[in-house]
Amino acid sequence: MLVVQKYGGTSVGTLERIHACAKRCLDTSRQGHGLVVVVSAMSGETNRLISLSNRLISQVHGDQTTQSDEGKGPYVVSGRVGHRPHQRELDQLVSTGEKVSASLLAIAIQELGGKAISLVGHQLGMMTDGSFTNARITTIDRERLHRELDAGHIVVCAGFQGLDREGNITTLGRGGSDTSAVALAAALQADACEILTDVDGVYTTDPRIEPRAQKLPHLTYEEMIELSSLGAKVLQIRSVEIAMKHRVPVHVRSSLHTGEGTWIVSEQPQQSGRAINLQTPIVRGVALDRNEAKITVTNVADIPGSIATIFGKLANDGVVVDMIIQNASRNGSTDVTFTVPEQDLDRSIEGLQALDLISSTSELISDRAICKISIVGVGMRTHAGVAAKAFELLGRDNINIQMVSTSEIKVSVVVHERYGELAVRALHEGFGLHQSAGEQQAAS
Amino acid sequence: MLVVQKYGGTSVGTLERIHACAKRCLDTSRQGHGLVVVVSAMSGETNRLISLSNRLISQVHGDQTTQSDEGKGPYVVSGRVGHRPHQRELDQLVSTGEKVSASLLAIAIQELGGKAISLVGHQLGMMTDGSFTNARITTIDRERLHRELDAGHIVVCAGFQGLDREGNITTLGRGGSDTSAVALAAALQADACEILTDVDGVYTTDPRIEPRAQKLPHLTYEEMIELSSLGAKVLQIRSVEIAMKHRVPVHVRSSLHTGEGTWIVSEQPQQSGRAINLQTPIVRGVALDRNEAKITVTNVADIPGSIATIFGKLANDGVVVDMIIQNASRNGSTDVTFTVPEQDLDRSIEGLQALDLISSTSELISDRAICKISIVGVGMRTHAGVAAKAFELLGRDNINIQMVSTSEIKVSVVVHERYGELAVRALHEGFGLHQSAGEQQAAS
Repeated sequence: MLVVQKYGGTSVGTLERIHACAKRCLDTSRQGHGLVVVVSAMSGETNRLISLSNRLISQVHGDQTTQSDEGKGPYVVSGRVGHRPHQRELDQLVSTGEKVSASLLAIAIQELGGKAISLVGHQLGMMTDGSFTNARITTIDRERLHRELDAGHIVVCAGFQGLDREGNITTLGRGGSDTSAVALAAALQADACEILTDVDGVYTTDPRIEPRAQKLPHLTYEEMIELSSLGAKVLQIRSVEIAMKHRVPVHVRSSLHTGEGTWIVSEQPQQSGRAINLQTPIVRGVALDRNEAKITVTNVADIPGSIATIFGKLANDGVVVDMIIQNASRNGSTDVTFTVPEQDLDRSIEGLQALDLISSTSELISDRAICKISIVGVGMRTHAGVAAKAFELLGRDNINIQMVSTSEIKVSVVVHERYGELAVRALHEGFGLHQSAGEQQAAS
Repeated sequence: MLVVQKYGGTSVGTLERIHACAKRCLDTSRQGHGLVVVVSAMSGETNRLISLSNRLISQVHGDQTTQSDEGKGPYVVSGRVGHRPHQRELDQLVSTGEKVSASLLAIAIQELGGKAISLVGHQLGMMTDGSFTNARITTIDRERLHRELDAGHIVVCAGFQGLDREGNITTLGRGGSDTSAVALAAALQADACEILTDVDGVYTTDPRIEPRAQKLPHLTYEEMIELSSLGAKVLQIRSVEIAMKHRVPVHVRSSLHTGEGTWIVSEQPQQSGRAINLQTPIVRGVALDRNEAKITVTNVADIPGSIATIFGKLANDGVVVDMIIQNASRNGSTDVTFTVPEQDLDRSIEGLQALDLISSTSELISDRAICKISIVGVGMRTHAGVAAKAFELLGRDNINIQMVSTSEIKVSVVVHERYGELAVRALHEGFGLHQSAGEQQAAS
């Protein structure tokens, strides 16, 4: 068996935890598995490095203001964008965090009597495109990995980073170490990619919101993608996409004990070689995403191309738009409402203000005080009325729905952020998720 | 003009200092110079990383002992060597410190409106041999540097590190950023290599010991090599060797102001194109080295090869032996005394104990409570009696000399560490070094 294990920032957050990881690596290796390990930066380290850069920039500009404008509520943005360092240099900077963890873990394994070698970008041959701070992996040099594995080494890789074709260091975005791990597992056709983390697995919803949340023994890739995109911060969404494409069985489990976590596999369990019962209930999980903001553009001329101009501009600026609503046309113009990640709100507004299209007749209205609640489950494909039931459950608690979006396996609604947790609990209970799988079967 | 500037750890030790370095880089660049910058890790960072590794190793071994055995005095070593991490991993680990500084300095220059790019090992093409923790530079990829310089960039390089032929990260030893800078200056045939540091230049002796110490306006490479090897921690000795070999004019100066520091040039000022008066006094400087320890091997069989075995073993273990004294033979055996760097004492003893040669009749006696004082000056070549005068000056203060070593331009003596500072002051005054250069000329 060849296994890829990924240890997140908390799992390598202290020297004690690194010691524990090293022991676990050796246990896995001594079971006869070839082992490739991917590590994140020690928790807090990436933020420390980014903060160094931010404080340096403030220092250079004699700028004592910080982004204290965190007040929420609808307001028209006047548009000041903070200084941003050259992203190439930022990537060179923050990529050091994982290098430190990788070396330390390799040292710990060696001190425990194991054979280990740490590999960083240019040694690993982890190539990416040139999108600094958010690069995508293109190729991996398997030869070097196989050579080290054949030599009996536990190969410890610095996650979150790669190199572009010019040899610049790139990073893969927050959570990018997940993607490093899954990509390595795919390249090596590993038998499993274990994501070792500080939670026991994937839950039906956030247990801090709903204490009756249940750990899910298994999920499909599609369900995990929806849950990831909806704020369940267990896995970087791109990692699940790669896992799905290459059919990498992903096992999200605790780094603190060896109990089973949640397997993320394809819908056809017989194909993955695992005897997992996917007789799923209709809804598998409820996710809450507080990190979206809403923008309304009023009085957009209702002619072909206007809408395309708006979303083309946002795409060019690298802003990922989620939900979009266009109201019916009135007097040849229309209002368009959509959501963007909250941290992209200011520059979205600034970008849109630069458009000729946003003339004096249009107004940009933004609202940070929203959240998105989603229910996810492959079972919804063959069950009508899931959305209707969700609306009914929310209505019963007098929760006003601002936006709705549905897909084959998901229903998402935007509500005032004040009602987020209430909505999660209502849907979690309404769809019977607080019961164990067996009880659910019986109840349905 | 093409200039290489090196900023040491203190000079980039805080964000304020990095800001100041960035301004200085821009000033240099705006004077029309091409500029390559080499940076050390922020002061304390390398030690922090090494400490992480050491603490991790203690953690793994449940080892609460630290190297608290710093007590000095002659003692027979029982020989316990601490756990040492795999040096490859240690180099991967500590090399991150300079990468952080390089990115931050590039960011600061950019924020000030300049063009800058940071380059790390694989981007810089800084190749070394495979001696982890103490590698030597072999080749540098000039093409990339010229490309960036031609593009108008200030090129900020991570010092102290390179890559071996397998792509492993190597480091160049403490002070290795000096060597990075001089090697880059040599490769690019730069007009000057400026070492920007927290002192104003090279002094006749350590001003903390002798407040009347004078800043030297210039020194020859050979004098600087002797002073470096003798504890004047201004420059890594290897950097001066490279400078001498490639005739790189080195300017040691303060990073806090733009006053002239000390030029280190060849003996032939007309060849270096600088009008420097090298009518030097006999002695140029007095150095104190507290970091040596003395080992005596008693009763070594006085037959061919015994001595070679001892020093061959130490060389194989990578211990640099400095002074060696062999006493006259008694009864077919002899005592050999030599000095090694204090931090290598324990493993030197341990290595020697493994030799068959060190039989039951031999004893290893070590003494940390020594120091070495040296006087250096190219003028000594043509002046007899410098050593005799030095002995006389020390004798006048009742300082007992334990070992003596002389070269063409240097006299070194080992004395009890208690007398180190006294000896420095006696020699500094006795050779008239507290006078300015003009006064010295008149006095001689």
